[in-house]
Amino acid sequence: MVTLGMIEAAAARLGPFLYRSPLVYSETLSGLTGHSIYLKLENLQMTGSFKERGALNKILSLTDAQRRTGVVAASAGNHGQAVAYHAGRRGIPAEIWMPKHTPLIKHTATRAHGAEVVLFGANYDEAYAGAVERCRQMGAVLLHAFDDDEIIVGQGTIGLEMLEQNPALDVIVVPVGGGGLAAGVGCAAKNVNPAVEVIGVQTAKLPSMQAALAAHVPITIPAASTLADGIAVRKAGDRTLPLVEQHVDQLLTVDDEEIATAILVLLEREKTLAEGAGAAGLAAVLHGKLAGSAKKVGIVISGGNLDVSLLSRIIERGLVRDGRRLRLNVRLPDHPGALEGLAALIAASRANIVETFHNRAHYGVTLSETAIDITMETRGREHVVEIERALGAAGYEFTRTE
Amino acid sequence: MVTLGMIEAAAARLGPFLYRSPLVYSETLSGLTGHSIYLKLENLQMTGSFKERGALNKILSLTDAQRRTGVVAASAGNHGQAVAYHAGRRGIPAEIWMPKHTPLIKHTATRAHGAEVVLFGANYDEAYAGAVERCRQMGAVLLHAFDDDEIIVGQGTIGLEMLEQNPALDVIVVPVGGGGLAAGVGCAAKNVNPAVEVIGVQTAKLPSMQAALAAHVPITIPAASTLADGIAVRKAGDRTLPLVEQHVDQLLTVDDEEIATAILVLLEREKTLAEGAGAAGLAAVLHGKLAGSAKKVGIVISGGNLDVSLLSRIIERGLVRDGRRLRLNVRLPDHPGALEGLAALIAASRANIVETFHNRAHYGVTLSETAIDITMETRGREHVVEIERALGAAGYEFTRTE
Repeated sequence: MVTLGMIEAAAARLGPFLYRSPLVYSETLSGLTGHSIYLKLENLQMTGSFKERGALNKILSLTDAQRRTGVVAASAGNHGQAVAYHAGRRGIPAEIWMPKHTPLIKHTATRAHGAEVVLFGANYDEAYAGAVERCRQMGAVLLHAFDDDEIIVGQGTIGLEMLEQNPALDVIVVPVGGGGLAAGVGCAAKNVNPAVEVIGVQTAKLPSMQAALAAHVPITIPAASTLADGIAVRKAGDRTLPLVEQHVDQLLTVDDEEIATAILVLLEREKTLAEGAGAAGLAAVLHGKLAGSAKKVGIVISGGNLDVSLLSRIIERGLVRDGRRLRLNVRLPDHPGALEGLAALIAASRANIVETFHNRAHYGVTLSETAIDITMETRGREHVVEIERALGAAGYEFTRTE
Repeated sequence: MVTLGMIEAAAARLGPFLYRSPLVYSETLSGLTGHSIYLKLENLQMTGSFKERGALNKILSLTDAQRRTGVVAASAGNHGQAVAYHAGRRGIPAEIWMPKHTPLIKHTATRAHGAEVVLFGANYDEAYAGAVERCRQMGAVLLHAFDDDEIIVGQGTIGLEMLEQNPALDVIVVPVGGGGLAAGVGCAAKNVNPAVEVIGVQTAKLPSMQAALAAHVPITIPAASTLADGIAVRKAGDRTLPLVEQHVDQLLTVDDEEIATAILVLLEREKTLAEGAGAAGLAAVLHGKLAGSAKKVGIVISGGNLDVSLLSRIIERGLVRDGRRLRLNVRLPDHPGALEGLAALIAASRANIVETFHNRAHYGVTLSETAIDITMETRGREHVVEIERALGAAGYEFTRTE
């Protein structure tokens, strides 16, 4: 059972050890969406996500004997780091189980907090099974990532805080994976103010909570890869499902393109870094999936642990989509000065060439031709049209290769 | 004359219209530097920088007649956006003069706030001269980016806020371009608590304040291109120099590599986006340029308007430097299956190939050889060593092409 009283008690208990993240009004996002947008920046927690709340609440609930034995968790991500950090600060031994092929950078971050990392199994489910067996053998407590009342209660403190920071919120939007955050925040918010609408957002690639709600029982759905790996959960929780059924008004889904756009908007407009799961809530609101208008909407930005090389790829794709990067394949006569003419024309259009690649034998070119892939930094869609028009007017044959 | 009283009055006047940015303690940065690090996140202001403070303070000081005539500023950057935004909100006509070749994206942001953008001159100095002449003709007030007492007073409110938010600060670190921020914050901080050390940080490419301090008069130094374009100022101000002389204890410099590292650290560890100038203060502290240890250091992160395509380049370079991206040029026999063998070996090392490029005629290869440029995502410097060792053991000839 999860109650408002339990969440209030947790808020008091956790308060001294966690960052009370700000609930920030965004004029820009409000302008873009037609709602009043408030962001709850849980990406600013010490280990970069809200997962610390549940993990710490569970740790504080352990007996002295349990603390001496230590804790075990299965997670290559935010939950693992949260457990490692808060167990480490209390001198509680922690083992974090991860699939064998987990990137080194994730071991390092977790080990740096003093936890032992165990690499086991080909995927998350196998690592989890290993962790369960390990707990059975050593008599240790398994810290589940979401399907545990103490974890749910800890996450629920976010709902309390948001309504303290702005009691006028009409809607609270949270990302949904296993459902711990939605269950806790839903329970807190609805009990404080039944008029608050609670909206969950899943990745369209893994709508396991939708499947569970439809079947009224958690169902395992096929694995899928998504930008929102933090909410890539194949099966909803037994503890979370009934709470989500009771307290969450609506479940929405977003696709990876929508999430990528939200990540870029948060970075460019709000100067804050969110990971895929962390940006899912905003992605839904930004793409007009919220009914009604002019509501006061609090969105949980749940985590910020996005690999920068992935961010770099998201940026490059975003630039192409916005017409700020353009690649054309242009036919050129294969003689000296041909590139110079093209380069001069592009320079006159004030685009910046960043990459060229000559093809002499492909794209069906004749022996007296070459085809050049030319990549430019451009100023937006209108600029792209202008460049293409100039090329066409000068007699160049070209195709856009996006 | 700039006095503490003026800065206190400005703080009260500006309060309702600006974001009181948080002064955030960073456990991670404290661990990295040996100091206690507090970040004043001025990158979170509405237009992405602290420039709003000075601009708004100046605007609020105008007479009704001056407001009706309108204001003029020369800036392709943060000052221009700040003026446009706060003039726009008050219905005051604003003209922002920018050099002709300013990227379209900067016009758009400034126009969106209701200002008129005038493109004039080949560089900043010419645009500035145009703006001055325009003001003379129309009798409008020029809003200088730094060399104006009302501007300096506005920026000074940051110093007041920081010492209110943490009265125990030993050191305040600010980026220095024309010196408006340093002059204002220095004046505020030293008058509130003379024991506070105030440190300015310039880009090593354009140390115009250092030159001015040495000569006791502003000196124009040669133009240079830097990642910290927000503090790329060729000549210190006549109003700012004496205040900097009086209130700033030390001037440090940082180079572009140090700034790029600071931008990445802020993004990866603090989940916040800073532009080059905005990260200059942290760059100095991160690279051990601050004397002593274990001090309470408040660092102004002054702005966050970094072009994302530039960010993407900074990330790529950072990955190479950290051994998280590797490019090798490998000699291969030019027959079927040769690449397969290499790819298998790299796969066994668990590196992810992201790009390959075959050269059949360059790098001095013989007719029976090819040279392949192969780019991989790797896990860090040790992983790079491991891959190179495996390639060497398998008899491959290769060179690293960074």
